[in-house]
Amino acid sequence: MSNPTAAMLVIGDEILSGRTRDTNTNYLAVELTNHGIQLTEARVVADDRDAIIAAVNALRAAYDTVFTSGGIGPTHDDITAEAIAAAFGVPITQRADAMALLQAHYDRAGLPFNEARQRMARIPDGAALIDNPISTAPGFTLGNVHVMAGVPNIFQAMVASVIPTLTGGAPLLSQSLRVNRGEGEIASDFAALAADFPDLTMGSYPFTTNGVYGTNLVVRGTDAGRIDAAMTRLAALFA
Amino acid sequence: MSNPTAAMLVIGDEILSGRTRDTNTNYLAVELTNHGIQLTEARVVADDRDAIIAAVNALRAAYDTVFTSGGIGPTHDDITAEAIAAAFGVPITQRADAMALLQAHYDRAGLPFNEARQRMARIPDGAALIDNPISTAPGFTLGNVHVMAGVPNIFQAMVASVIPTLTGGAPLLSQSLRVNRGEGEIASDFAALAADFPDLTMGSYPFTTNGVYGTNLVVRGTDAGRIDAAMTRLAALFA
Repeated sequence: MSNPTAAMLVIGDEILSGRTRDTNTNYLAVELTNHGIQLTEARVVADDRDAIIAAVNALRAAYDTVFTSGGIGPTHDDITAEAIAAAFGVPITQRADAMALLQAHYDRAGLPFNEARQRMARIPDGAALIDNPISTAPGFTLGNVHVMAGVPNIFQAMVASVIPTLTGGAPLLSQSLRVNRGEGEIASDFAALAADFPDLTMGSYPFTTNGVYGTNLVVRGTDAGRIDAAMTRLAALFA
Repeated sequence: MSNPTAAMLVIGDEILSGRTRDTNTNYLAVELTNHGIQLTEARVVADDRDAIIAAVNALRAAYDTVFTSGGIGPTHDDITAEAIAAAFGVPITQRADAMALLQAHYDRAGLPFNEARQRMARIPDGAALIDNPISTAPGFTLGNVHVMAGVPNIFQAMVASVIPTLTGGAPLLSQSLRVNRGEGEIASDFAALAADFPDLTMGSYPFTTNGVYGTNLVVRGTDAGRIDAAMTRLAALFA
Protein backbone atom coordinates (compact mmCIF):
# COMPACT_ATOMS: atom_id res chain seq x y z
CA MET A 1 0.00 0.00 0.00
CA SER A 2 1.30 3.43 -0.83
CA ASN A 3 -0.80 5.40 1.61
CA PRO A 4 0.85 8.36 3.36
CA THR A 5 2.72 7.41 6.53
CA ALA A 6 2.63 8.91 10.01
CA ALA A 7 4.36 8.51 13.36
CA MET A 8 3.23 9.28 16.90
CA LEU A 9 5.56 10.60 19.62
CA VAL A 10 4.18 10.50 23.15
CA ILE A 11 6.14 12.70 25.54
CA GLY A 12 5.88 12.17 29.28
CA ASP A 13 7.56 10.63 32.33
CA GLU A 14 4.14 9.63 33.63
CA ILE A 15 3.60 7.16 30.78
CA LEU A 16 7.01 5.54 31.24
CA SER A 17 6.63 5.24 35.01
CA GLY A 18 3.34 3.41 34.49
CA ARG A 19 1.34 6.00 36.44
CA THR A 20 -0.69 6.98 33.39
CA ARG A 21 -1.87 4.84 30.47
CA ASP A 22 -1.38 6.37 27.04
CA THR A 23 -4.70 6.37 25.23
CA ASN A 24 -3.78 8.97 22.62
CA THR A 25 -1.88 6.58 20.36
CA ASN A 26 -4.85 4.27 19.95
CA TYR A 27 -7.20 7.20 19.31
CA LEU A 28 -4.88 8.61 16.67
CA ALA A 29 -4.38 5.17 15.09
CA VAL A 30 -8.11 4.74 14.53
CA GLU A 31 -8.54 8.26 13.13
CA LEU A 32 -5.58 7.92 10.77
CA THR A 33 -6.73 4.51 9.55
CA ASN A 34 -10.14 5.97 8.72
CA HIS A 35 -8.45 8.81 6.83
CA GLY A 36 -6.23 6.49 4.79
CA ILE A 37 -2.99 7.41 6.55
CA GLN A 38 -0.84 4.58 7.82
CA LEU A 39 0.46 4.95 11.38
CA THR A 40 3.80 3.25 10.90
CA GLU A 41 5.64 3.85 14.18
CA ALA A 42 4.93 5.14 17.66
CA ARG A 43 7.41 6.12 20.37
CA VAL A 44 7.23 7.20 23.98
CA VAL A 45 10.06 9.31 25.45
CA ALA A 46 10.54 11.05 28.80
CA ASP A 47 10.30 14.78 29.52
CA ASP A 48 13.92 15.03 28.41
CA ARG A 49 15.09 17.66 25.94
CA ASP A 50 17.69 15.53 24.17
CA ALA A 51 15.36 12.54 23.92
CA ILE A 52 12.57 14.66 22.42
CA ILE A 53 14.90 16.31 19.90
CA ALA A 54 16.40 13.00 18.76
CA ALA A 55 13.01 11.32 18.39
CA VAL A 56 11.37 14.22 16.54
CA ASN A 57 14.24 14.51 14.11
CA ALA A 58 14.31 10.76 13.43
CA LEU A 59 10.55 10.55 12.91
CA ARG A 60 10.04 13.68 10.80
CA ALA A 61 12.74 12.48 8.41
CA ALA A 62 11.29 8.99 8.14
CA TYR A 63 7.53 9.62 7.83
CA ASP A 64 5.21 11.98 5.98
CA THR A 65 3.60 13.34 9.15
CA VAL A 66 4.45 13.29 12.87
CA PHE A 67 2.09 13.88 15.79
CA THR A 68 3.29 14.57 19.32
CA SER A 69 1.28 14.56 22.54
CA GLY A 70 2.20 15.99 25.92
CA GLY A 71 4.45 18.59 27.50
CA ILE A 72 2.88 21.84 26.27
CA GLY A 73 1.39 23.05 29.57
CA PRO A 74 2.54 25.84 31.89
CA THR A 75 4.76 23.95 34.34
CA HIS A 76 8.53 23.50 34.50
CA ASP A 77 8.32 19.94 33.17
CA ASP A 78 6.53 21.13 30.00
CA ILE A 79 9.48 21.40 27.62
CA THR A 80 8.05 20.11 24.36
CA ALA A 81 7.75 23.46 22.54
CA GLU A 82 11.34 24.43 23.38
CA ALA A 83 12.59 21.00 22.30
CA ILE A 84 10.69 21.11 18.99
CA ALA A 85 12.16 24.56 18.23
CA ALA A 86 15.63 23.19 18.97
CA ALA A 87 14.98 20.14 16.78
CA PHE A 88 14.16 22.44 13.85
CA GLY A 89 16.91 24.93 14.75
CA VAL A 90 14.50 27.87 14.95
CA PRO A 91 13.95 30.49 17.71
CA ILE A 92 10.97 30.31 20.05
CA THR A 93 9.19 33.37 21.38
CA GLN A 94 5.93 34.40 23.01
CA ARG A 95 3.79 35.02 19.99
CA ALA A 96 1.29 37.88 19.83
CA ASP A 97 -1.58 35.80 18.45
CA ALA A 98 -1.18 33.10 21.09
CA MET A 99 -0.80 35.75 23.82
CA ALA A 100 -4.04 37.40 22.71
CA LEU A 101 -5.97 34.12 22.71
CA LEU A 102 -4.77 33.23 26.19
CA GLN A 103 -5.23 36.76 27.60
CA ALA A 104 -8.87 36.73 26.46
CA HIS A 105 -9.38 33.24 27.89
CA TYR A 106 -8.08 34.12 31.36
CA ASP A 107 -9.90 37.46 31.33
CA ARG A 108 -13.16 35.62 30.70
CA ALA A 109 -12.35 33.19 33.52
CA GLY A 110 -11.35 36.00 35.90
CA LEU A 111 -7.94 34.38 36.42
CA PRO A 112 -4.56 36.10 36.29
CA PHE A 113 -2.62 35.65 33.04
CA ASN A 114 0.57 35.05 34.99
CA GLU A 115 4.09 34.19 33.86
CA ALA A 116 3.49 30.44 33.95
CA ARG A 117 0.41 30.74 31.77
CA GLN A 118 2.26 33.05 29.40
CA ARG A 119 4.71 30.18 28.78
CA MET A 120 1.92 28.50 26.82
CA ALA A 121 2.20 31.29 24.23
CA ARG A 122 5.76 30.28 23.41
CA ILE A 123 5.64 29.04 19.80
CA PRO A 124 8.56 28.19 17.50
CA ASP A 125 9.10 30.67 14.66
CA GLY A 126 7.25 29.68 11.50
CA ALA A 127 4.69 27.46 13.21
CA ALA A 128 0.93 27.61 12.61
CA LEU A 129 -1.33 27.41 15.66
CA ILE A 130 -3.65 24.44 16.26
CA ASP A 131 -6.95 25.45 17.83
CA ASN A 132 -7.73 24.23 21.35
CA PRO A 133 -11.50 24.56 21.81
CA ILE A 134 -11.34 23.18 25.35
CA SER A 135 -8.74 25.15 27.29
CA THR A 136 -7.48 27.61 24.64
CA ALA A 137 -3.71 27.00 25.00
CA PRO A 138 -2.86 26.18 21.38
CA GLY A 139 -0.89 23.39 19.79
CA PHE A 140 1.14 24.13 16.70
CA THR A 141 2.28 22.71 13.37
CA LEU A 142 5.89 23.18 12.31
CA GLY A 143 6.93 21.56 9.04
CA ASN A 144 5.36 18.09 9.08
CA VAL A 145 5.16 17.93 12.88
CA HIS A 146 1.87 18.54 14.74
CA VAL A 147 2.45 19.31 18.42
CA MET A 148 -0.57 18.64 20.59
CA ALA A 149 -1.67 18.44 24.21
CA GLY A 150 -1.44 15.23 26.23
CA VAL A 151 -4.79 15.57 28.01
CA PRO A 152 -6.93 13.14 26.00
CA ASN A 153 -9.98 15.30 25.29
CA ILE A 154 -7.78 18.20 24.16
CA PHE A 155 -5.60 15.86 22.09
CA GLN A 156 -8.72 14.50 20.41
CA ALA A 157 -10.04 17.97 19.60
CA MET A 158 -6.71 18.93 18.06
CA VAL A 159 -6.59 15.71 16.00
CA ALA A 160 -10.07 16.56 14.72
CA SER A 161 -8.86 19.92 13.44
CA VAL A 162 -5.58 18.64 11.96
CA ILE A 163 -6.63 15.48 10.14
CA PRO A 164 -8.92 17.16 7.56
CA THR A 165 -5.90 19.26 6.48
CA LEU A 166 -3.85 16.17 5.62
CA THR A 167 -3.87 14.38 2.30
CA GLY A 168 -5.19 10.92 3.00
CA GLY A 169 -5.12 7.83 0.87
CA ALA A 170 -7.87 5.35 0.27
CA PRO A 171 -9.30 4.49 3.69
CA LEU A 172 -7.71 1.37 5.18
CA LEU A 173 -10.54 -1.12 5.47
CA SER A 174 -10.59 -4.30 7.50
CA GLN A 175 -12.80 -7.27 8.14
CA SER A 176 -12.31 -10.02 10.65
CA LEU A 177 -13.40 -13.61 11.15
CA ARG A 178 -13.53 -15.26 14.55
CA VAL A 179 -12.45 -18.90 14.39
CA ASN A 180 -12.79 -21.31 17.29
CA ARG A 181 -9.47 -22.99 16.59
CA GLY A 182 -5.95 -22.27 17.77
CA GLU A 183 -3.56 -20.31 15.60
CA GLY A 184 -1.34 -23.34 15.06
CA GLU A 185 -4.20 -25.30 13.53
CA ILE A 186 -5.09 -22.71 10.89
CA ALA A 187 -1.66 -21.21 10.25
CA SER A 188 -0.74 -23.25 7.20
CA ASP A 189 -3.99 -22.72 5.26
CA PHE A 190 -4.09 -19.08 6.34
CA ALA A 191 -0.57 -18.45 5.04
CA ALA A 192 -1.43 -20.06 1.70
CA LEU A 193 -4.51 -17.88 1.36
CA ALA A 194 -2.52 -14.76 2.31
CA ALA A 195 -0.04 -15.57 -0.45
CA ASP A 196 -2.94 -15.42 -2.96
CA PHE A 197 -3.74 -11.84 -1.86
CA PRO A 198 -0.41 -9.98 -1.84
CA ASP A 199 -2.29 -6.66 -2.05
CA LEU A 200 -3.92 -7.31 1.36
CA THR A 201 -2.44 -7.64 4.83
CA MET A 202 -3.61 -10.61 6.88
CA GLY A 203 -2.99 -11.02 10.58
CA SER A 204 -4.07 -13.55 13.17
CA TYR A 205 -4.69 -12.74 16.82
CA PRO A 206 -5.11 -15.56 19.30
CA PHE A 207 -7.45 -15.38 22.26
CA THR A 208 -8.60 -17.66 25.05
CA THR A 209 -12.19 -17.68 26.30
CA ASN A 210 -13.11 -20.03 29.15
CA GLY A 211 -10.04 -22.11 28.43
CA VAL A 212 -10.86 -22.53 24.74
CA TYR A 213 -8.34 -21.28 22.21
CA GLY A 214 -9.54 -19.23 19.29
CA THR A 215 -8.14 -16.88 16.68
CA ASN A 216 -9.33 -13.64 15.14
CA LEU A 217 -8.28 -13.43 11.51
CA VAL A 218 -8.06 -9.88 10.22
CA VAL A 219 -7.82 -8.84 6.57
CA ARG A 220 -6.79 -5.26 5.80
CA GLY A 221 -6.49 -3.31 2.58
CA THR A 222 -7.92 -0.47 0.54
CA ASP A 223 -10.01 -2.46 -1.99
CA ALA A 224 -13.33 -3.54 -0.49
CA GLY A 225 -13.96 -6.04 -3.29
CA ARG A 226 -10.65 -7.80 -2.72
CA ILE A 227 -11.30 -7.94 1.02
CA ASP A 228 -14.72 -9.46 0.37
CA ALA A 229 -13.15 -12.07 -1.90
CA ALA A 230 -10.60 -12.98 0.76
CA MET A 231 -13.27 -13.17 3.47
CA THR A 232 -15.39 -15.49 1.33
CA ARG A 233 -12.45 -17.86 0.97
CA LEU A 234 -11.56 -17.57 4.67
CA ALA A 235 -15.14 -18.41 5.66
CA ALA A 236 -15.15 -21.45 3.36
CA LEU A 237 -11.90 -22.67 4.93
CA PHE A 238 -12.60 -22.09 8.59
CA ALA A 239 -16.28 -21.36 9.30
CA MET B 1 19.00 8.80 39.24
CA SER B 2 21.42 6.18 38.08
CA ASN B 3 19.02 3.26 38.00
CA PRO B 4 19.38 0.73 35.18
CA THR B 5 17.49 1.67 32.02
CA ALA B 6 15.13 -0.34 29.85
CA ALA B 7 13.19 0.02 26.63
CA MET B 8 10.03 -1.67 25.35
CA LEU B 9 9.44 -2.62 21.71
CA VAL B 10 5.87 -3.54 20.80
CA ILE B 11 5.65 -5.39 17.49
CA GLY B 12 2.35 -5.61 15.65
CA ASP B 13 0.27 -4.15 12.82
CA GLU B 14 -2.83 -4.50 14.99
CA ILE B 15 -1.59 -1.89 17.47
CA LEU B 16 -0.74 0.62 14.74
CA SER B 17 -4.06 0.14 12.93
CA GLY B 18 -5.88 0.91 16.18
CA ARG B 19 -7.65 -2.45 16.23
CA THR B 20 -5.92 -3.51 19.45
CA ARG B 21 -4.85 -1.38 22.41
CA ASP B 22 -1.37 -2.08 23.73
CA THR B 23 -1.60 -2.84 27.44
CA ASN B 24 1.77 -4.55 27.76
CA THR B 25 3.80 -1.33 27.94
CA ASN B 26 1.88 -0.04 30.93
CA TYR B 27 2.13 -3.40 32.68
CA LEU B 28 5.88 -3.54 32.10
CA ALA B 29 6.32 0.09 33.19
CA VAL B 30 4.74 -0.59 36.57
CA GLU B 31 6.75 -3.78 37.13
CA LEU B 32 10.04 -2.14 36.17
CA THR B 33 9.36 0.89 38.36
CA ASN B 34 8.77 -1.41 41.33
CA HIS B 35 12.03 -3.21 40.59
CA GLY B 36 14.06 0.00 40.35
CA ILE B 37 14.57 -0.13 36.59
CA GLN B 38 13.74 2.98 34.61
CA LEU B 39 11.67 2.43 31.47
CA THR B 40 13.23 5.16 29.34
CA GLU B 41 11.70 4.62 25.91
CA ALA B 42 8.96 2.61 24.24
CA ARG B 43 8.35 2.03 20.55
CA VAL B 44 5.71 0.34 18.43
CA VAL B 45 6.63 -0.98 14.99
CA ALA B 46 4.76 -3.00 12.38
CA ASP B 47 5.23 -6.69 11.53
CA ASP B 48 8.02 -5.59 9.21
CA ARG B 49 11.40 -7.27 9.26
CA ASP B 50 13.51 -4.17 8.55
CA ALA B 51 11.58 -2.06 11.06
CA ILE B 52 12.04 -4.67 13.80
CA ILE B 53 15.75 -5.07 13.09
CA ALA B 54 16.39 -1.31 13.11
CA ALA B 55 14.44 -0.73 16.32
CA VAL B 56 16.00 -3.66 18.20
CA ASN B 57 19.51 -2.61 17.24
CA ALA B 58 18.92 1.02 18.22
CA LEU B 59 17.34 0.14 21.56
CA ARG B 60 19.77 -2.60 22.66
CA ALA B 61 22.68 -0.23 22.07
CA ALA B 62 21.06 2.63 23.98
CA TYR B 63 19.59 0.90 27.05
CA ASP B 64 20.64 -1.74 29.58
CA THR B 65 17.70 -4.03 28.81
CA VAL B 66 15.14 -4.34 26.02
CA PHE B 67 11.79 -6.13 26.13
CA THR B 68 9.79 -7.00 23.04
CA SER B 69 6.18 -8.16 22.81
CA GLY B 70 4.40 -9.77 19.89
CA GLY B 71 5.09 -11.76 16.76
CA ILE B 72 6.30 -15.08 18.18
CA GLY B 73 3.27 -17.23 17.29
CA PRO B 74 2.86 -19.86 14.58
CA THR B 75 1.43 -17.81 11.69
CA HIS B 76 3.06 -16.23 8.66
CA ASP B 77 2.92 -12.74 10.20
CA ASP B 78 4.93 -13.88 13.24
CA ILE B 79 8.41 -12.82 12.17
CA THR B 80 9.90 -11.52 15.41
CA ALA B 81 12.25 -14.43 16.14
CA GLU B 82 13.72 -14.35 12.61
CA ALA B 83 14.16 -10.57 12.79
CA ILE B 84 15.87 -10.72 16.20
CA ALA B 85 18.29 -13.34 14.89
CA ALA B 86 19.04 -11.11 11.91
CA ALA B 87 19.52 -8.08 14.19
CA PHE B 88 22.16 -10.00 16.13
CA GLY B 89 23.62 -11.62 13.02
CA VAL B 90 23.17 -15.15 14.34
CA PRO B 91 21.51 -18.23 12.76
CA ILE B 92 18.06 -19.40 13.84
CA THR B 93 17.06 -23.05 14.00
CA GLN B 94 14.42 -25.31 15.50
CA ARG B 95 15.96 -26.06 18.85
CA ALA B 96 15.71 -29.49 20.47
CA ASP B 97 14.71 -28.20 23.92
CA ALA B 98 11.95 -25.99 22.53
CA MET B 99 10.79 -28.82 20.22
CA ALA B 100 10.57 -31.19 23.19
CA LEU B 101 8.55 -28.73 25.27
CA LEU B 102 6.08 -28.11 22.45
CA GLN B 103 5.82 -31.79 21.45
CA ALA B 104 4.89 -32.71 25.03
CA HIS B 105 2.37 -29.86 25.19
CA TYR B 106 0.54 -30.86 22.01
CA ASP B 107 0.70 -34.55 22.92
CA ARG B 108 -1.05 -33.75 26.23
CA ALA B 109 -3.65 -31.68 24.36
CA GLY B 110 -4.18 -34.39 21.73
CA LEU B 111 -3.37 -31.91 18.96
CA PRO B 112 -1.02 -32.42 16.02
CA PHE B 113 2.42 -30.84 16.41
CA ASN B 114 2.29 -29.61 12.84
CA GLU B 115 4.70 -27.52 10.80
CA ALA B 116 3.16 -24.19 11.86
CA ARG B 117 3.43 -25.08 15.54
CA GLN B 118 7.01 -26.26 15.00
CA ARG B 119 7.83 -22.70 13.87
CA MET B 120 7.48 -21.69 17.52
CA ALA B 121 10.57 -23.79 18.32
CA ARG B 122 12.72 -21.58 16.09
CA ILE B 123 15.15 -19.84 18.47
CA PRO B 124 18.22 -17.76 17.58
CA ASP B 125 21.54 -19.42 18.37
CA GLY B 126 22.83 -18.54 21.83
CA ALA B 127 19.45 -17.54 23.28
CA ALA B 128 18.08 -18.79 26.60
CA LEU B 129 14.42 -19.82 26.70
CA ILE B 130 11.83 -17.88 28.71
CA ASP B 131 9.23 -20.11 30.30
CA ASN B 132 5.62 -19.83 29.11
CA PRO B 133 3.44 -21.40 31.82
CA ILE B 134 0.25 -20.66 29.89
CA SER B 135 0.61 -21.98 26.37
CA THR B 136 4.16 -23.46 26.46
CA ALA B 137 5.61 -21.74 23.33
CA PRO B 138 8.68 -20.12 24.86
CA GLY B 139 10.06 -16.63 24.66
CA PHE B 140 13.81 -16.15 24.67
CA THR B 141 16.61 -13.92 25.90
CA LEU B 142 19.43 -13.03 23.52
CA GLY B 143 22.06 -10.65 24.85
CA ASN B 144 20.15 -7.90 26.66
CA VAL B 145 16.95 -8.46 24.67
CA HIS B 146 13.99 -10.37 26.12
CA VAL B 147 11.58 -11.54 23.43
CA MET B 148 8.09 -12.22 24.72
CA ALA B 149 4.57 -13.01 23.58
CA GLY B 150 2.06 -10.26 22.78
CA VAL B 151 -0.97 -11.93 24.39
CA PRO B 152 -1.22 -10.00 27.66
CA ASN B 153 -1.51 -12.85 30.16
CA ILE B 154 1.42 -14.68 28.55
CA PHE B 155 3.46 -11.46 28.36
CA GLN B 156 2.80 -10.89 32.05
CA ALA B 157 3.86 -14.40 33.01
CA MET B 158 7.09 -13.99 31.05
CA VAL B 159 7.80 -10.62 32.67
CA ALA B 160 7.33 -12.28 36.06
CA SER B 161 10.03 -14.83 35.25
CA VAL B 162 12.49 -12.35 33.69
CA ILE B 163 12.41 -9.42 36.11
CA PRO B 164 13.84 -11.27 39.13
CA THR B 165 16.90 -12.12 37.00
CA LEU B 166 17.66 -8.43 36.35
CA THR B 167 19.75 -6.21 38.58
CA GLY B 168 17.42 -3.51 39.82
CA GLY B 169 18.20 -0.24 41.50
CA ALA B 170 16.50 1.29 44.47
CA PRO B 171 12.75 1.09 43.81
CA LEU B 172 11.38 4.24 42.23
CA LEU B 173 8.94 5.65 44.77
CA SER B 174 6.29 8.25 44.18
CA GLN B 175 3.72 10.24 46.09
CA SER B 176 1.09 12.55 44.70
CA LEU B 177 -1.00 15.47 45.90
CA ARG B 178 -4.30 16.41 44.32
CA VAL B 179 -4.77 20.17 44.17
CA ASN B 180 -8.03 21.84 43.17
CA ARG B 181 -6.33 24.58 41.20
CA GLY B 182 -5.26 24.79 37.57
CA GLU B 183 -1.69 24.07 36.56
CA GLY B 184 -1.09 27.69 35.58
CA GLU B 185 -1.92 28.87 39.09
CA ILE B 186 0.56 26.63 40.91
CA ALA B 187 3.29 26.41 38.26
CA SER B 188 5.55 29.10 39.61
CA ASP B 189 5.64 27.92 43.25
CA PHE B 190 5.87 24.31 42.09
CA ALA B 191 8.89 25.04 39.90
CA ALA B 192 10.63 26.86 42.78
CA LEU B 193 10.03 23.90 45.08
CA ALA B 194 11.25 21.44 42.43
CA ALA B 195 14.49 23.44 42.17
CA ASP B 196 15.07 22.81 45.89
CA PHE B 197 14.89 19.03 45.31
CA PRO B 198 17.15 18.33 42.32
CA ASP B 199 17.41 14.68 43.41
CA LEU B 200 13.66 14.21 42.85
CA THR B 201 11.51 14.39 39.73
CA MET B 202 8.35 16.45 39.98
CA GLY B 203 5.57 16.42 37.45
CA SER B 204 2.13 18.00 37.25
CA TYR B 205 -0.85 16.43 35.50
CA PRO B 206 -3.94 18.52 34.90
CA PHE B 207 -7.45 17.13 35.07
CA THR B 208 -11.00 18.45 34.77
CA THR B 209 -13.82 17.12 36.95
CA ASN B 210 -17.31 18.55 36.45
CA GLY B 211 -15.82 21.58 34.75
CA VAL B 212 -13.41 22.33 37.61
CA TYR B 213 -9.71 22.38 36.78
CA GLY B 214 -7.32 20.58 39.09
CA THR B 215 -3.78 19.25 39.06
CA ASN B 216 -2.15 16.12 40.35
CA LEU B 217 1.37 16.86 41.54
CA VAL B 218 3.63 13.81 41.51
CA VAL B 219 7.01 13.53 43.25
CA ARG B 220 9.29 10.66 42.28
CA GLY B 221 12.63 9.46 43.55
CA THR B 222 14.43 6.69 45.40
CA ASP B 223 14.78 8.31 48.86
CA ALA B 224 11.56 8.03 50.85
CA GLY B 225 12.70 10.64 53.38
CA ARG B 226 13.37 13.24 50.70
CA ILE B 227 10.00 12.52 49.08
CA ASP B 228 8.30 12.97 52.46
CA ALA B 229 10.09 16.29 52.92
CA ALA B 230 8.97 17.50 49.51
CA MET B 231 5.38 16.38 50.12
CA THR B 232 5.29 18.26 53.45
CA ARG B 233 6.31 21.44 51.70
CA LEU B 234 3.89 20.82 48.81
CA ALA B 235 1.03 20.32 51.25
CA ALA B 236 1.91 23.55 53.08
CA LEU B 237 1.91 25.43 49.78
CA PHE B 238 -1.21 24.07 48.14
CA ALA B 239 -3.42 22.15 50.58
